[in-house]
Amino acid sequence: MNVYGKHYRTIWLKDDDPNVVQIIDQRHLPHRFVVEDLTNVDEVAVAIKDMHVRGAGLIGATAGYGMYIAALHAPRTSPEAFMAAVSADGDKLIATRPTAVNLEWAVKRQLAAMSAAGDDPEERIQVAQNIAKEIADEDAEFCRRLGEHGKSIIKEISERKGGEPVNVLTHCNAGWLAFVDYGSATAPVYAAHDEGVLVHVWVDETRPRNQGARLTAWELGQHGVPHTVIADNVGGHLMQHGLVDVVIVGTDRTLYTGDVANKIGTYLKALAAKDNGVPFYVALPSSTFDWEKRDGVEEIPFEQRGGEEVKYIWGQTEAGDIEQVLLTPEDSPAANFAFDVTPARLVTGLITERGICAASEAGVLGLYPEKR
Amino acid sequence: MNVYGKHYRTIWLKDDDPNVVQIIDQRHLPHRFVVEDLTNVDEVAVAIKDMHVRGAGLIGATAGYGMYIAALHAPRTSPEAFMAAVSADGDKLIATRPTAVNLEWAVKRQLAAMSAAGDDPEERIQVAQNIAKEIADEDAEFCRRLGEHGKSIIKEISERKGGEPVNVLTHCNAGWLAFVDYGSATAPVYAAHDEGVLVHVWVDETRPRNQGARLTAWELGQHGVPHTVIADNVGGHLMQHGLVDVVIVGTDRTLYTGDVANKIGTYLKALAAKDNGVPFYVALPSSTFDWEKRDGVEEIPFEQRGGEEVKYIWGQTEAGDIEQVLLTPEDSPAANFAFDVTPARLVTGLITERGICAASEAGVLGLYPEKR
Repeated sequence: MNVYGKHYRTIWLKDDDPNVVQIIDQRHLPHRFVVEDLTNVDEVAVAIKDMHVRGAGLIGATAGYGMYIAALHAPRTSPEAFMAAVSADGDKLIATRPTAVNLEWAVKRQLAAMSAAGDDPEERIQVAQNIAKEIADEDAEFCRRLGEHGKSIIKEISERKGGEPVNVLTHCNAGWLAFVDYGSATAPVYAAHDEGVLVHVWVDETRPRNQGARLTAWELGQHGVPHTVIADNVGGHLMQHGLVDVVIVGTDRTLYTGDVANKIGTYLKALAAKDNGVPFYVALPSSTFDWEKRDGVEEIPFEQRGGEEVKYIWGQTEAGDIEQVLLTPEDSPAANFAFDVTPARLVTGLITERGICAASEAGVLGLYPEKR
Repeated sequence: MNVYGKHYRTIWLKDDDPNVVQIIDQRHLPHRFVVEDLTNVDEVAVAIKDMHVRGAGLIGATAGYGMYIAALHAPRTSPEAFMAAVSADGDKLIATRPTAVNLEWAVKRQLAAMSAAGDDPEERIQVAQNIAKEIADEDAEFCRRLGEHGKSIIKEISERKGGEPVNVLTHCNAGWLAFVDYGSATAPVYAAHDEGVLVHVWVDETRPRNQGARLTAWELGQHGVPHTVIADNVGGHLMQHGLVDVVIVGTDRTLYTGDVANKIGTYLKALAAKDNGVPFYVALPSSTFDWEKRDGVEEIPFEQRGGEEVKYIWGQTEAGDIEQVLLTPEDSPAANFAFDVTPARLVTGLITERGICAASEAGVLGLYPEKR
């Protein structure tokens, strides 16, 4: 997507030096656009661990490129020494965020490919570079496709409204910054916008970490998509007054039964959508499906993070510094639940790279019959 | 309620100088406890306009004391000059927050009482002081009584739970800081807590102005009530997992049909309460009833405030300064809706100074038959 008028992905090989991987260091957004060079595996590990990059798709792609960097630096004394080194680097990467499924998957895919590539270290490096690109391209392509499918929903509303802007509400950042390109929830929006359909996005700020206010608002603004930041409290009121045509969110994990785990607060918006007859869609590449669990509220363990993320917030001071400020009494405790579960009964449909389906076992297995 | 172990109201006459009114300058909470002297009507007007004091009950009480100060400074040359001066001061006070119903009501009550008091300025001043105290006492007494009624709800849950802490969720600040004492939504909590019932409050931070994180957390903490600050996104998740026993909120305006206008985001919590079978109560002194309108969503005009309240937030820096920081891209627009309407069908009951009733015309008129 566009940044200051130039097309970017979230990760790429440096133009004049293919030994360097570049990323957007997202910690500085929206106040600064910082491109970071990654030249060794330790830097890649820090970038994942300290959330210079985040989002399932982008974490997987970064791990893919990280393994390519590992190959560049692996000893060429013997094929075994080479594989031992890249394998150890893979473990180091996996340890950075142990719950990120795409991370382990990318590392294993790289190890298998390098193993299969024969003993020549140069060939292994070339294979690792190819696979890294492949992982990134696949992520982008899945998002592009789900964007095309989701676009039909927005276009249909646009036609019904006689071309008036379609108001989409989204929560958190399920944008291109969380993937390699396009994003999940944002992909239908970008696809419609790029085709000239008038669309406007209500951006939930998404407390406590404000991924909406910081990231979604920034990426939509950079790509020229009209948007308005709102407090998380506002969506219900907007829906009561007909100011939201459709809700589209991403997901951290969606059960094949249709229950959706996503950023905390998603469930509240789904309730409001149901109460006001507003369609509520969840956009996801199929890698985000959980094919095991059946009941989201009962079976998905809930994650609690530190209360200081609620008590303190980062922002830019008048002097232009990035600082954190305390919002609560110093000694008030705070609780910080990371995500909630939206039951399938509140979800109108799932937008995937294969098409749109009902949020139900029948709907999902209809699109993914190989999982039956 | 208690502040640093000492009992306070939100407004009072200075101990050793009854010509001075004192308030808590709430702009500095929770980081500093600042008591401000009000010695002339201009200072009172600024205190209301710039929100050193806020909340319907407290604004009314401040206007009452403001008119007493007006009387202290009115010319004694003639009864007419006296009344002309206090009347002009009354207009000045009413202009500070024209939509605050209690403000105009308190000013008019004072003017009528001074008019009726005869021509002696000393007597008028004494009457104004008495009426100011009366308005404040009435406000406190109404809140105390609704607290007693509401306490029964908490005690019943406590008994059912075998004395385990009762988890109350509240939104915004409907605490004693918004009234003269006790508060509305907090009054049942304080009453139960003071009686030794174990109670714990989930405090919605209440973006964008964070009245929960700043004020409710502070006043509960000062009074020793266990509480936990949460992002506004969290309540639904807590209710799904049985972590909320009852929701109690205040209201800006409640129609006699039971529709409740309150701080933005209240509606979302009411939806979650309904979806999870959690009782949802609204606490209000009867002065907050609107006896005219019937349909909240259709008839209550919705108020929009400046988007900068969403884009910027105040807090305390590490250096101890109170500063505001920018949370969004500089050029992203933001929308700021002040309140939403919770339809009566989502409200379990209304807690008033006369008792608890259903959120319906029949329920309300049953308690207030004189309004039939």
